[in-house]
Amino acid sequence: MALSESGIACALVEEKPWDWRPQFLDLNPAAELPVLQLDDGQLLCGAYAISEFIAEEGIVAGLDESAIAAAPISLFPGSREDRAEVRRLVDWFNGKMHREVTREFLYEKVYSRMAGGMRHTPDVDMLRAIRSNLRYHLSYVGFLAYQRNWLAGEALSFADIAAAAHLSTIDYLGEVPWDEHPAAKDWYMRVKSRPSLRAILTDRVPGAHPPPHYAELDF
Amino acid sequence: MALSESGIACALVEEKPWDWRPQFLDLNPAAELPVLQLDDGQLLCGAYAISEFIAEEGIVAGLDESAIAAAPISLFPGSREDRAEVRRLVDWFNGKMHREVTREFLYEKVYSRMAGGMRHTPDVDMLRAIRSNLRYHLSYVGFLAYQRNWLAGEALSFADIAAAAHLSTIDYLGEVPWDEHPAAKDWYMRVKSRPSLRAILTDRVPGAHPPPHYAELDF
Repeated sequence: MALSESGIACALVEEKPWDWRPQFLDLNPAAELPVLQLDDGQLLCGAYAISEFIAEEGIVAGLDESAIAAAPISLFPGSREDRAEVRRLVDWFNGKMHREVTREFLYEKVYSRMAGGMRHTPDVDMLRAIRSNLRYHLSYVGFLAYQRNWLAGEALSFADIAAAAHLSTIDYLGEVPWDEHPAAKDWYMRVKSRPSLRAILTDRVPGAHPPPHYAELDF
Repeated sequence: MALSESGIACALVEEKPWDWRPQFLDLNPAAELPVLQLDDGQLLCGAYAISEFIAEEGIVAGLDESAIAAAPISLFPGSREDRAEVRRLVDWFNGKMHREVTREFLYEKVYSRMAGGMRHTPDVDMLRAIRSNLRYHLSYVGFLAYQRNWLAGEALSFADIAAAAHLSTIDYLGEVPWDEHPAAKDWYMRVKSRPSLRAILTDRVPGAHPPPHYAELDF
């Protein structure tokens, strides 16, 4: 989504990090995703290195804050202080929300099945706790979306992309109670209408179907 | 350590995030550390937002890569590609090593005691697994330090600071088998000799003493 918003074309390659393919370890010894390989062969490992590398195209290109803000590809719109707020929220979604919600849902409902071998029956008490955590994060998204135009301020930023990445993943599992959180839902409808996310919503996990509303713009 | 290397004076304030103090939640709703409050009142939440904010002082100040590299405060030395390597390694230590080693040691040996109430007896099998993970990370630090001057390249960077933060924490617990990893030890002796880390090594956790070698430059 960040690459598309930045006008950078890319080809997606499927990788199952738990297979520890030697060729993949050669690319990233951490055996983690995402990894971006540039046309000149350079490797960028991890969402942090990738997003900052893309963003520097805008930041390094000029001293003038207004020129940076006006660049077509800036997912760090605004001033240095505004970028700090974007980064705080990226940390919130990729760190806190990932630990408290996304990672736990994926463990309970997806990874245990994909890795094969050990079957894991979802733990009912654990699912209840994760759903409770999710409501807290949806309230926070709604709070931000109600006070601002986009989550970090007036313009779309990496913060919206991080939040959308987590929420679209959870939505694929049919676990987002959108109707209880109208402000978050309104924000997500606006994110969904962007071509950068629409392309991703057609992607499917083999053997697992998303709920009917998942890819619909009006849900 | 990053503030000191960047020539920024700061006062440290103790905060126990698990107390969920309302005044602390006002500063950072994520209830996580670190939080940096600037003289003008601006708040920076999280190592990501703080380190990039400090670094932009150097990056935004000039277009010229050599001018950026020569700035006294640059903890992102070098080119855009070099910065991507620093960020990959920061992710490695603050993400992967934190999950696989530091967080687990702290849970087993420190937090359960500090939070009071529930006593937790360290799990012997878990400690063995964490120590095995640590050896893998020490090998990687040694590999990087052997091939390069500092972990990400020719100059000290945020990568060294991230690694030193984790290793000094684990060293406080007496858990680092330095003698098995001479290249990592040599690198850590050089980091320890910097005033920015020496000041921190005099800090103590109430009721828990580090091993005698902990603050010694020659160990």
